[in-house]
Amino acid sequence: MPKINENYLKLEKNYLFINIAKKINEYIAENPDKKSNIIRMGIGDVTLPIAPCVVEAVKKGAEEMGVKETFKGYEDSGTGYDFLKEAIAGYYKSFGADVRADEIRISDGAKSDCGNIVDIFGDDNVVLITDPAYPVYVDSNLMNGRKVIYADSSEENGFCAVPDYNVHADLIYLCSPNNPTGSVFNEEQLKAWIDYAITNKAIIIYDAAYEAFITEPGIPRSIFQVEGARQCAIEICSLSKTAGFTGMRCGYTVIPNELEVEASDGTMVNISQLWGRRQGSKFNGVSYPIQCGAAAVFSKEGREQIKVNLDYYKENARIIAGTMDKIGIQYTGGINSPYIWLKCPNNMGSWEFFDYLLHEANVVGTPGEGFGKNGKGYFRLTSFGDRDATIEAMARIEKLLLK
Amino acid sequence: MPKINENYLKLEKNYLFINIAKKINEYIAENPDKKSNIIRMGIGDVTLPIAPCVVEAVKKGAEEMGVKETFKGYEDSGTGYDFLKEAIAGYYKSFGADVRADEIRISDGAKSDCGNIVDIFGDDNVVLITDPAYPVYVDSNLMNGRKVIYADSSEENGFCAVPDYNVHADLIYLCSPNNPTGSVFNEEQLKAWIDYAITNKAIIIYDAAYEAFITEPGIPRSIFQVEGARQCAIEICSLSKTAGFTGMRCGYTVIPNELEVEASDGTMVNISQLWGRRQGSKFNGVSYPIQCGAAAVFSKEGREQIKVNLDYYKENARIIAGTMDKIGIQYTGGINSPYIWLKCPNNMGSWEFFDYLLHEANVVGTPGEGFGKNGKGYFRLTSFGDRDATIEAMARIEKLLLK
Repeated sequence: MPKINENYLKLEKNYLFINIAKKINEYIAENPDKKSNIIRMGIGDVTLPIAPCVVEAVKKGAEEMGVKETFKGYEDSGTGYDFLKEAIAGYYKSFGADVRADEIRISDGAKSDCGNIVDIFGDDNVVLITDPAYPVYVDSNLMNGRKVIYADSSEENGFCAVPDYNVHADLIYLCSPNNPTGSVFNEEQLKAWIDYAITNKAIIIYDAAYEAFITEPGIPRSIFQVEGARQCAIEICSLSKTAGFTGMRCGYTVIPNELEVEASDGTMVNISQLWGRRQGSKFNGVSYPIQCGAAAVFSKEGREQIKVNLDYYKENARIIAGTMDKIGIQYTGGINSPYIWLKCPNNMGSWEFFDYLLHEANVVGTPGEGFGKNGKGYFRLTSFGDRDATIEAMARIEKLLLK
Repeated sequence: MPKINENYLKLEKNYLFINIAKKINEYIAENPDKKSNIIRMGIGDVTLPIAPCVVEAVKKGAEEMGVKETFKGYEDSGTGYDFLKEAIAGYYKSFGADVRADEIRISDGAKSDCGNIVDIFGDDNVVLITDPAYPVYVDSNLMNGRKVIYADSSEENGFCAVPDYNVHADLIYLCSPNNPTGSVFNEEQLKAWIDYAITNKAIIIYDAAYEAFITEPGIPRSIFQVEGARQCAIEICSLSKTAGFTGMRCGYTVIPNELEVEASDGTMVNISQLWGRRQGSKFNGVSYPIQCGAAAVFSKEGREQIKVNLDYYKENARIIAGTMDKIGIQYTGGINSPYIWLKCPNNMGSWEFFDYLLHEANVVGTPGEGFGKNGKGYFRLTSFGDRDATIEAMARIEKLLLK
């Protein structure tokens, strides 16, 4: 009989969104007239449509697939089409990050790559993850039985975890702008992590999925804007939040060509090649029409069109943050992030505040403790909703909490 | 410093297609005038365009993504849209396979799922793979350090490996119609493997990527047409060869709801749920417009349109097989498969015959030994090429070999 991978049995069942759905359904069952009144600000999914020039590019790509002369089968490189990798390299260049087109590999999104990248590393590595964090970092490492240690992101450090030289790690997950806390690392803070990684000969897996929400000058959009990153970092990015691709599926991962680690026999192993070997056997690449659409995101027209959507979400975030300011609720995020991470008022617990908001204001958010122990007593609201609904939700919260 | 997964260093470098490209380039460098004369029948990639109704469905899906009211973000289930799963379940029903829509999970193609499915099984399983075989089965298991044993597919058994009850396996990869040998399992042969799997409490990972090429009645298109399969089998399928999706990327995997194995503590673990947990953390799902296109493949119009392409490839296969018959070369495949697996004439080795065909006929195929030891002295030709080129290649081979 096959033995299952028993590490899976040790995973905490992630009941977060199941519990949220259950509580909403129970409330609706008791208050059927309130169903249409509920405003959902919980799940981090976008709601605005794909930009027109991106839709056109996907359609054009699909049409090319229908004509023998322009039909595309398997991609030769398996790393993504050059036209897309060059468009992304151009984008990196526009804000001063040192990334070459041949260091970029196209993926179906950040989640897969964040989870799968560790396949190329041994199961005996120590993995450092900030707490709170996106659950995929933790789960995908526990699935291989790796030891996971945590760096606190908490009120004390403004939800920007700092390295502790008394602790050794081999792999480090960082996410900035952060999901769920909305906090960002400035250059100095990132440099501190890079220095720690170089000292520990560790590799940083840097999740930049929310970089498009950065508005303040001086906040790095890419770890490759910071000195030393090419010696120790892998960056994973996505078009999901940048261009509304949660249902289109396209992202990219950058591994500097020179990044390598020593194998047990002393030979130096190139990380990009190792990842290529993994992907060559276990990933099929991204659909050609979708890659066409992704490339359009980086065109002049595309940048202008997605900016309209990004500005819409940013204005939602400003409205939410403004309400928090007015009520006097402490929070991070909202400026360089679509998330507002707030301290539950009156010392309420995460789930207590969830129930309170659901019942008293018909507003749904995400209890912070679903992201780790430092999320206890915190709550995440997203700015990805409809403008009118966001304004209405904030009016209700203000009415409920502004004394 | 992170330890790499050293199993990767033990993988045989797969130089097959690299060597083929190298030999072609060397030949062209010496014979620049022959460059345009070379006919490539090596790589198993399709060449005919996507069916018109599929292109239209992708375009319509893309348009829906551009309108707020019909925009799709994350898929709720993460398993694929119901409209596609129901279309596939209907297809299974049409040839009598017992598969329900809620047992189907949409993927980006068979390769990823063939490689990733074993993540849910422990590294201490014994994996049985036929030889010759698609290299991904071997590599994706060696990447986790699993023990791989082989079942011979050879001239003696018509390249249809048979189970050996003296050997124990926990996981078994079967592929029918087979890549590279073009052979198919009939119902009795598949039943023998199912009986072996049930006796050994093993699980069969059944790759049905080439099922659309089956023309003979009585040959199962799915392992779920055979009694007992629901107790022991997972089926992985793809639209790559069925509908020319090698550049579009969509496939599907079927796990019977009742399939379970016992964990070390005696609890029964549901395989479909375990795979769902893996995919939930490490896969992002398939793009909505591509799923729309995939569903169109299974419509009445789609079935008719893809049949035109399949018939074209089948006729190419018939032409190739006819030439082999005429010359008196022994082969398998060509009837229920796009591949013709031939015994190299005059006891030539695989690479010897490759060089001979390249130099004397300017025709490129794939040396069989690239797929395993039983491929030595064999050679794979594909029927995915252009009709005129296929006819011309066969005329050259006939001229060269028909004495």
